[in-house]
Amino acid sequence: MTGFDETADQWVVTLSCKDRPGIVHKVSGAVVGADGNITELQQFSSQDTGNFFIRLQFATALPQSAIVGQLAPVADELGATWQIDVVGRPLRTLILASKAGHCVQDLLFRTHADQLSVHVPLVLSNHENLRELSDFYHVPFESHYVVPETKADFERRVMQVVEEQGVELVVLARYMQILSPQLCDFLQGRAINIHHSFLPGFKGANPYRQAHARGVKLIGATAHFVTADLDEGPIIEQNVVRVDHADSPRQLMAIGQDIESRTLSQAVRLFSEHRVLLDGVRTIVFQ
Amino acid sequence: MTGFDETADQWVVTLSCKDRPGIVHKVSGAVVGADGNITELQQFSSQDTGNFFIRLQFATALPQSAIVGQLAPVADELGATWQIDVVGRPLRTLILASKAGHCVQDLLFRTHADQLSVHVPLVLSNHENLRELSDFYHVPFESHYVVPETKADFERRVMQVVEEQGVELVVLARYMQILSPQLCDFLQGRAINIHHSFLPGFKGANPYRQAHARGVKLIGATAHFVTADLDEGPIIEQNVVRVDHADSPRQLMAIGQDIESRTLSQAVRLFSEHRVLLDGVRTIVFQ
Amino acid sequence: MTGFDETADQWVVTLSCKDRPGIVHKVSGAVVGADGNITELQQFSSQDTGNFFIRLQFATALPQSAIVGQLAPVADELGATWQIDVVGRPLRTLILASKAGHCVQDLLFRTHADQLSVHVPLVLSNHENLRELSDFYHVPFESHYVVPETKADFERRVMQVVEEQGVELVVLARYMQILSPQLCDFLQGRAINIHHSFLPGFKGANPYRQAHARGVKLIGATAHFVTADLDEGPIIEQNVVRVDHADSPRQLMAIGQDIESRTLSQAVRLFSEHRVLLDGVRTIVFQ
Amino acid sequence: MTGFDETADQWVVTLSCKDRPGIVHKVSGAVVGADGNITELQQFSSQDTGNFFIRLQFATALPQSAIVGQLAPVADELGATWQIDVVGRPLRTLILASKAGHCVQDLLFRTHADQLSVHVPLVLSNHENLRELSDFYHVPFESHYVVPETKADFERRVMQVVEEQGVELVVLARYMQILSPQLCDFLQGRAINIHHSFLPGFKGANPYRQAHARGVKLIGATAHFVTADLDEGPIIEQNVVRVDHADSPRQLMAIGQDIESRTLSQAVRLFSEHRVLLDGVRTIVFQ
Repeated sequence: MTGFDETADQWVVTLSCKDRPGIVHKVSGAVVGADGNITELQQFSSQDTGNFFIRLQFATALPQSAIVGQLAPVADELGATWQIDVVGRPLRTLILASKAGHCVQDLLFRTHADQLSVHVPLVLSNHENLRELSDFYHVPFESHYVVPETKADFERRVMQVVEEQGVELVVLARYMQILSPQLCDFLQGRAINIHHSFLPGFKGANPYRQAHARGVKLIGATAHFVTADLDEGPIIEQNVVRVDHADSPRQLMAIGQDIESRTLSQAVRLFSEHRVLLDGVRTIVFQ
Repeated sequence: MTGFDETADQWVVTLSCKDRPGIVHKVSGAVVGADGNITELQQFSSQDTGNFFIRLQFATALPQSAIVGQLAPVADELGATWQIDVVGRPLRTLILASKAGHCVQDLLFRTHADQLSVHVPLVLSNHENLRELSDFYHVPFESHYVVPETKADFERRVMQVVEEQGVELVVLARYMQILSPQLCDFLQGRAINIHHSFLPGFKGANPYRQAHARGVKLIGATAHFVTADLDEGPIIEQNVVRVDHADSPRQLMAIGQDIESRTLSQAVRLFSEHRVLLDGVRTIVFQ
Repeated sequence: MTGFDETADQWVVTLSCKDRPGIVHKVSGAVVGADGNITELQQFSSQDTGNFFIRLQFATALPQSAIVGQLAPVADELGATWQIDVVGRPLRTLILASKAGHCVQDLLFRTHADQLSVHVPLVLSNHENLRELSDFYHVPFESHYVVPETKADFERRVMQVVEEQGVELVVLARYMQILSPQLCDFLQGRAINIHHSFLPGFKGANPYRQAHARGVKLIGATAHFVTADLDEGPIIEQNVVRVDHADSPRQLMAIGQDIESRTLSQAVRLFSEHRVLLDGVRTIVFQ
Repeated sequence: MTGFDETADQWVVTLSCKDRPGIVHKVSGAVVGADGNITELQQFSSQDTGNFFIRLQFATALPQSAIVGQLAPVADELGATWQIDVVGRPLRTLILASKAGHCVQDLLFRTHADQLSVHVPLVLSNHENLRELSDFYHVPFESHYVVPETKADFERRVMQVVEEQGVELVVLARYMQILSPQLCDFLQGRAINIHHSFLPGFKGANPYRQAHARGVKLIGATAHFVTADLDEGPIIEQNVVRVDHADSPRQLMAIGQDIESRTLSQAVRLFSEHRVLLDGVRTIVFQ
């Protein structure tokens, strides 16, 4: 919450606290106090938890220190968790990968094409094969051989990169190793995973084969926060696409990879724009 | 803006004015002044027109007069257009129909099933055939023979019903007569029409036949406000569905009717919940 | 396979057997032998089971007996299961219902509007409340009080109606009783059920509440054949729709009912047009 | 129709002719004569033009010459246009590009990832900026400065590449020059273009700005064959995506580019698998 570009003039604030009357008035009052003009505002009062969430963007000519000077006392009074950022500032994002390239490719391409506001200091993989892809996008790449005995080393390297590079988001772009509970805790609320999703769901190996065997008509993907509960973290984004009986398991996998890539990139975009807030085990997504 | 249920405790306010700093703060201040707790708030600043739009729902134990007493001075100061309503109050909605029953059926069913918060005092048609359907839903039905010489009479009857019944929304549920410019003016901002939509668009008669001839892969529907520019009013809702070369013009029409019904009902729901605001020729839709 | 309208001139044949070279040639030869002209043909060879499936429509001036005279020997030689019907003949369809009216309403409306080619001799329910709806569509209605002690009576009544009325399809339109294994067996391959579907799936009561609690972004519906494995029968059709954090459990349910209705009607249409074939536990759907 | 891999064992045949009884029987008879086993077959009889279309895949151990020996006489007798190819053979595909890289990137990535069965001998552009991208995928790149005086030279180069490289498909991947009628004729039925699509459509420059101004709720893309009628060629594939009032023209363009890329790649896949046939101005697409 310190040291951004003092010449910025578009800011985004997210704030959450226990719901009570008058929060919007107080928060918008702080923006008025900072000579700000609100350009986007979304709020939500959760009936489930009694929590209140707000995201607002505003323009002001005043520096960050003046804005914080207005907002901090309000947040304190509300007992709120809050964040301020410059609109459009690229989020420092570490990509974890394994062999599959479709999600990494999609993320790097969109970053390169300015469709995603992230900066990727490193692609860290347990396989070597995506080096050429990373090179093409001028993104540093590092791979380590991961077996049970070296897994702790790899995870320490993840934590080290996060801390040294000030990483704000870790994206598991089809990274196929299960994270240790310690790493899950360390990354809580700042790591996004992607997995295929089916109606109905399937347990166990080779889900595309199972989906084919069951004759499903829709296959999809879910992007969610990483938690110690495997594939059960808060959902950020989901998409599906129609398939039919003639699609082989191999074709289902190709279709599935396509929707995995898109869904993960959408989730990263939403997160990087501070549009994803947590209300217990569910997300509030301010599209 | 007068005389609602004084025992209500959930209110919805929409307001628009020229954008300037501090509007959210002022409006939310009025809500605080009315002992209100905001449960939903959306706002939008139009870069195109410099206008500001807000929709908020809030709960309060105070009566409407107290709320208006807080909001009216703020609205005056802002030079704003605004509206207040009880959340969930059924909107008085006149349905205009011709022979086709699919949209009327969908609207009446959803109303009956409490999926749409509208009250329909009358179905007014230039054909007799939908009387039985209206009867089933216990909705009054009236038909008049419309030819060029009697069209003005029919339109006078529309205006009369609107005024006598306090109609707040007129839905053209596949009403196939072109409205006179006078009636368009009279109904401005409170009449919704539905028409089929194609990629690309088609001019002239029998568009489903044209769409088939052109081999389109998607057909859709657009719900829009009625204006004197035929089928060019501000768009409220759009949907499409996939078709293919084997669909005959007759099948395309059946598919098209399905999506027309759904799209019109969605638009009516959005309007009845005061989620549709006008910014010149475009709508702001607070989903 | 007997006694249809001898003056029909559009026929639909479905046939399945073990795959081997030359089946299309043999079957199309029988059509040529019956002076038929094929207007639609789809086939599929299942890599999973080694089964072959074909559906074809053709026009001929010859009577049914002549067609069967050509096709029966071919089917015998192939050891095939097959069926012949007049294109567009309404399928005799029994609707089972409970309290919820959305699916029944959708089916009856579409039948009435000639969007579904079915004839409904009876709506059979364990509640009385849908009588008025059935009356409106001039469809006989019968309700029985079902408690554990009377459930067998109700199921006997189902079987009796099926046999007496020559029912070809039983639709469980949100019929909320679990069918006995005996009834499941009796109805195998000719009963369709609908249930809500989520990504991920939820077990137990009140799934819309669970879906809300989990913050899912898509909700859907699956139409499937009834089997003794509850909700695990072969899938016929699936659809989803986007929702968000602000949708209450009640709103999710309304959205869910809408997609249930549409999905069930689509499945009934596919079945009534003989487009759904079974390959073990999965369907082949010739759209 | 000559000189494919004689060791192939999966073949795809497309054939069209005037409709008449017995075509399927004759064609499938030729497959039987070639010891073939049909694995996929789709046919369509156009009510509009009286034309018949069939696409079939079959496996056989016999060489291509034996297959042609069976099929050619049948095709002759039917007066049919037909084609035979090895299933999965990469289609020689020339990409024409300008400055925008999204479609080129998507095509090259999918080709590289074996999601598209094409071989790209060259990316030919009127700008230099996509060279690095082509290099990365090891695809030759060539750019020429195109102004009115040099346009004919560029088009001659296109025709030269087509002939020298045996190009079977030309993809206009956001190539922004209008093709001359001569080049359109030369490429008829083997060149695919992509353009954005809106409900309703917009004429003139900067359509995303117009779409924003009109408040459209869906934007899309259409892939179609190139004809001398600009953007009016037979439609191959279409997709849309939902947008709202808050999407700026710039965001609409990013969303639009995404759907353009996907739609173009889908169209290329369909064409490369010989799934797209022409019935006058409309396509028959055998998905």
